[in-house]
Amino acid sequence: MGNRIITISREFGSGGRTIGNMTAEKLGIKCYDAELIQKIAAESGLAADYVEEKSEHASRLESFKSPVTAGMAADSFAMDNLLWQAQSKVIKELADKESCVIVGRCADYILREYDNILTVFIHADFDKRVERVVQVYGESSVSPQKRVKEKDKRRKTYYRFNTDMEWGQAEHYHICLDSGVLGIDKCVQLLCELY
Amino acid sequence: MGNRIITISREFGSGGRTIGNMTAEKLGIKCYDAELIQKIAAESGLAADYVEEKSEHASRLESFKSPVTAGMAADSFAMDNLLWQAQSKVIKELADKESCVIVGRCADYILREYDNILTVFIHADFDKRVERVVQVYGESSVSPQKRVKEKDKRRKTYYRFNTDMEWGQAEHYHICLDSGVLGIDKCVQLLCELY
Repeated sequence: MGNRIITISREFGSGGRTIGNMTAEKLGIKCYDAELIQKIAAESGLAADYVEEKSEHASRLESFKSPVTAGMAADSFAMDNLLWQAQSKVIKELADKESCVIVGRCADYILREYDNILTVFIHADFDKRVERVVQVYGESSVSPQKRVKEKDKRRKTYYRFNTDMEWGQAEHYHICLDSGVLGIDKCVQLLCELY
Repeated sequence: MGNRIITISREFGSGGRTIGNMTAEKLGIKCYDAELIQKIAAESGLAADYVEEKSEHASRLESFKSPVTAGMAADSFAMDNLLWQAQSKVIKELADKESCVIVGRCADYILREYDNILTVFIHADFDKRVERVVQVYGESSVSPQKRVKEKDKRRKTYYRFNTDMEWGQAEHYHICLDSGVLGIDKCVQLLCELY
């Protein structure tokens, strides 16, 4: 019996990261989230800040839309490819090494050929997410509504660009949960049971 | 504490109807599926066969695409409206009367203002559904692949037309489950727990 992996994709402010951490703790396995960025940075040789920023952007798409020079577009393209390769390698190595929870980074897609994987999507009503974002991350100069919309848009574009699939379409995940209605504890309980 | 309702939307061949029936039985409540058609027929005065056929079609859309006369299109429109009104009334009356499971018929949308509702979407991999359709419904002159595709297309169109939302988009449901991977028994167990 090999390692068992839970991948969590989530809307911003849905508590998906918290659900990932709590589930991993209950199951006695590791949850890779911030640590993943460090590993991808080390693998790619890119700065962690850049990895964090870029891993949820689709700079290639953005580049093509801007009036950039061909050289800049090609550089951006090469960097994104490097990042995607490093990300895929790190995630696959983790899955080969140990049972764990992996949050974000298209891990569901990267590990699509693996058995013993449980792919999860966590979402919640827009207003509930806005409320949570303020609670968890505090206020900022940008309105929480705008922050949630922007981040969702980036994740959607990034996911679609790298996977050719629609983000948040139920059929791509084994289980999708509305954390706003069901509550975070209930989501954790269900995932532990399915594991 | 009012009635608690589970609505189940499902891809054809995903076992959603079976999951609905099994969940209701375990919870000791009724599951409305075929009986719903009889009730809608009685309410609308339309034949049960017509209700069954039409409730998962979007004849209005189809009509507009065909070179029909204005009179025929208007008749079809009026019939569909009558059916939708009857369907909404029957489903709301059931929800007011008793705790139950309701399969299909856009019940999630019709009851969207209700509290104590759990909206569920059941899906599975295309090949698994094809296999199940042959197992459950037997062979027919039309290939099972075609039957699954056609039925999905109809349900999608019907849902979109009546609700202005995309069918199978995770955010519209409290929980979405891949019955092909998780198995029917596990899906039933999870729904009973959430109830």
